[in-house]
Amino acid sequence: MDLSQADITSIRETAELMADAARRVTLQYFRGGELATENKWDEGFDPVTVADREAEKSMRAILAEKRPEDSILGEEFGVTVGTSGLTWVLDPIDGTRGFISGTPTWGVLIAVSDENGPIFGVIDQPYIGERFRGGFGLAKMQGPHWARGLGVSSVSRLSDATLFTTFPEVGTFEEAAAFREVEREVKLTRYGMDCYAYALLAAGQIDLVIEAGLQPYDIQAPIAVIQAAGGVVTDWKGEPAHNGGRVLAAATPELHAAALLLLSDA
Amino acid sequence: MDLSQADITSIRETAELMADAARRVTLQYFRGGELATENKWDEGFDPVTVADREAEKSMRAILAEKRPEDSILGEEFGVTVGTSGLTWVLDPIDGTRGFISGTPTWGVLIAVSDENGPIFGVIDQPYIGERFRGGFGLAKMQGPHWARGLGVSSVSRLSDATLFTTFPEVGTFEEAAAFREVEREVKLTRYGMDCYAYALLAAGQIDLVIEAGLQPYDIQAPIAVIQAAGGVVTDWKGEPAHNGGRVLAAATPELHAAALLLLSDA
Repeated sequence: MDLSQADITSIRETAELMADAARRVTLQYFRGGELATENKWDEGFDPVTVADREAEKSMRAILAEKRPEDSILGEEFGVTVGTSGLTWVLDPIDGTRGFISGTPTWGVLIAVSDENGPIFGVIDQPYIGERFRGGFGLAKMQGPHWARGLGVSSVSRLSDATLFTTFPEVGTFEEAAAFREVEREVKLTRYGMDCYAYALLAAGQIDLVIEAGLQPYDIQAPIAVIQAAGGVVTDWKGEPAHNGGRVLAAATPELHAAALLLLSDA
Repeated sequence: MDLSQADITSIRETAELMADAARRVTLQYFRGGELATENKWDEGFDPVTVADREAEKSMRAILAEKRPEDSILGEEFGVTVGTSGLTWVLDPIDGTRGFISGTPTWGVLIAVSDENGPIFGVIDQPYIGERFRGGFGLAKMQGPHWARGLGVSSVSRLSDATLFTTFPEVGTFEEAAAFREVEREVKLTRYGMDCYAYALLAAGQIDLVIEAGLQPYDIQAPIAVIQAAGGVVTDWKGEPAHNGGRVLAAATPELHAAALLLLSDA
């Protein structure tokens, strides 16, 4: 879709406002934040569910004001149909198990997609105060110590690659077996980073992320950020991954091809 | 050992200065910080090794000035023998693989031990800007959004517990098999947090950490912080764990006993 410079500016600014709002809301419920006391827990109150919903509401309120003609696909409140041809794809807390455990590696995911997939994405880690953005020719992160451009590594061989996934189980038995074939070839495999692994790939720190069983809202923001940083994201057959399912994200086309060869039989 | 209030104050203040110094040094090498450019990497320069050494040097320089009579056991420069009966046990970067991968879950570990084991400890995460301290009747954390007391959870049954370890492989085949017995009983198992998992246990976010193959400098600071927060840390036989090896850290005595029962045959 052809967007005017005014539209691009509006999308970028709206995404920042949304990420700011979701950051405020989620932190109120994180690690016994002010709205998540131990007492309430004991009464069967689930802070992460409430935080998820409240954060999505806060983002939808901003869209209603700033971009009322766009569609929305949100993890918590489903689809709102608009007329612009653009869809905001929202995961207010990606990595709810990480959130519950207090790890600083869950994130707020915001993507904007047209008919071909994501064109802009934001990965925000509220506790660290770190935001990764990609799209419209821009790939940039801002964190507690510095702001800088994002760019993937130049690693092209599995034997030089660091691979991340969230759970050792990966997915089905067949999916786990395919993952193990890649794992056997790489230099280092690490677990447990949720969406943060995609941000580390865009930042050039790691080289491969392989996951399965994803939803569209889990992967659209990472796709936009990684592609803007120069990386490759597809499903395990080399097809577009923005509808979720099995995902292979790689720093370089060569590394992507090498991993795809091992995954594509699954 | 009986310590004067002046000694306690001096130890606390010295530990803060050391953690500040190590934070400055390690961040210069983390994620392409100012002293860890891609160029240097290509020439075979290993930022994490240099950062490890420089950070330990910076901490030893402070000890030489402030506490010259204490002994030192450091990961990088070994033992320096003192006369006070106290030993500073230092791991300048715990979680070097996490450091290399850019994750925000490695840490600087500083412990002070007497003849019976650790009496004070600090776990610092430089990138997040988060510090966990325990000992001398104090258990406190300070992070980017709040400072507050530390306290373990009240979880007493494996079926309610969240368990962390760094690698799914855990250790030897036998150690992994014993770990799997506990894993089968718990509510949730997560991986990849390095020393940060111990901090999350002290903060009441998770309930169990089980690891094997540790060095004394990997575990002494976590022991002090967790014990000060009300938790229990032993080896897999229920004996003191400050010499390293196999470690079981639990939020409550009941949870510790339940896990110990499954681990003690290994």
